[in-house]
Amino acid sequence: MAGIKVHGAAMSTATQRVLVCLEEKGLDYELCPVNMATGEHKKQPFLSINPFGQVPGFEHGDLKLFESRAITQYITHENAQKGTNLLCQGKEMAILGVWLEVEAQKFEPVASKLNWEIVFKPMFGMQTDPAAVEENETKLAGVLDVYETRLSQSKYLGGDSFTLADLHHLPNLQLLLNHQSKKVIDARPKVAAWAADITARQTWAKVLALHKK
Amino acid sequence: MAGIKVHGAAMSTATQRVLVCLEEKGLDYELCPVNMATGEHKKQPFLSINPFGQVPGFEHGDLKLFESRAITQYITHENAQKGTNLLCQGKEMAILGVWLEVEAQKFEPVASKLNWEIVFKPMFGMQTDPAAVEENETKLAGVLDVYETRLSQSKYLGGDSFTLADLHHLPNLQLLLNHQSKKVIDARPKVAAWAADITARQTWAKVLALHKK
Repeated sequence: MAGIKVHGAAMSTATQRVLVCLEEKGLDYELCPVNMATGEHKKQPFLSINPFGQVPGFEHGDLKLFESRAITQYITHENAQKGTNLLCQGKEMAILGVWLEVEAQKFEPVASKLNWEIVFKPMFGMQTDPAAVEENETKLAGVLDVYETRLSQSKYLGGDSFTLADLHHLPNLQLLLNHQSKKVIDARPKVAAWAADITARQTWAKVLALHKK
Repeated sequence: MAGIKVHGAAMSTATQRVLVCLEEKGLDYELCPVNMATGEHKKQPFLSINPFGQVPGFEHGDLKLFESRAITQYITHENAQKGTNLLCQGKEMAILGVWLEVEAQKFEPVASKLNWEIVFKPMFGMQTDPAAVEENETKLAGVLDVYETRLSQSKYLGGDSFTLADLHHLPNLQLLLNHQSKKVIDARPKVAAWAADITARQTWAKVLALHKK
């Protein structure tokens, strides 16, 4: 799978989601920086890849994709035999599909709001809203209560091996672990062990190192 | 595919999403009503199907699933040769995957907020918040501007035939067409034609008739 270009930013959680998937599959790619400070993502030529003007954009030959979770689905289906097997088959895939949706519909909205308030707002010189933090930490606790039960039945969310459902959590989960909301994770032993496990993957360290460059 | 049970409510948009998919595939199923007024979805045995306590829940033999979009993925992959072909292959499937994500990440959040304010709040004796309506109609306009461009390139979102990406819109789109936010759709000719086309499907009429029973 030659000629992969990821247009994005190493600090963007959605870009990181695609990069760690490419690393797990052992694929070569070029990270083409999009300067969000100058609004490059809201102008052509980036809008020809993602008309919504959000990173990342993805190119493979003449195929252009956007939405990080659609990109990882493409990568994993096209490269099923390479690197880590991030999918499964039949009924196991159906269960994995449920947890892919849980990440997107339940975890992401609250985790990204917390990270916006606690990490990104201060970075942009804006004030964190303590009420929004409290509201979303309560919501996160409710979501992670369900995860705690799930992770007492299987080592990973999709089953007994690391899959795309776990991988999709990495960027927002890593940010949560770096700030006060870590307490919500720490209060749930199975969730804490899972979070420590998946964020310790070498592929993820490689993506974080890109960010620190 | 015998023995399918959908636990839900005919007025729930997420339940309708699963039902119209089953209808498109020509599959038999049993709709098992969950009484949300008495909080049946927040108690056992429903929680053993969906620990988040939201309809629908889905059973096929000993397989239990939740999250409407994960359920429709299971139904379409397991029944690829039956009824309407709602998926495609290779690069076309990658494009379809992008539009599945756009529905879930861009359309659903604003459409469901509008429907909550305008349809469901009054139904539950609550006051519609005009500021929330205005904010989300503006957001919907931005999303549908992108749809207008897309639908001038292909008849449906995923390509030239009706797929799961279009189908997932039906429940929230139908509600929008029934109230004031229809003006945002009507202002965009390609979107208006697409909305009229997909909501006119016989399978969808069958699901709406269940609701009216």
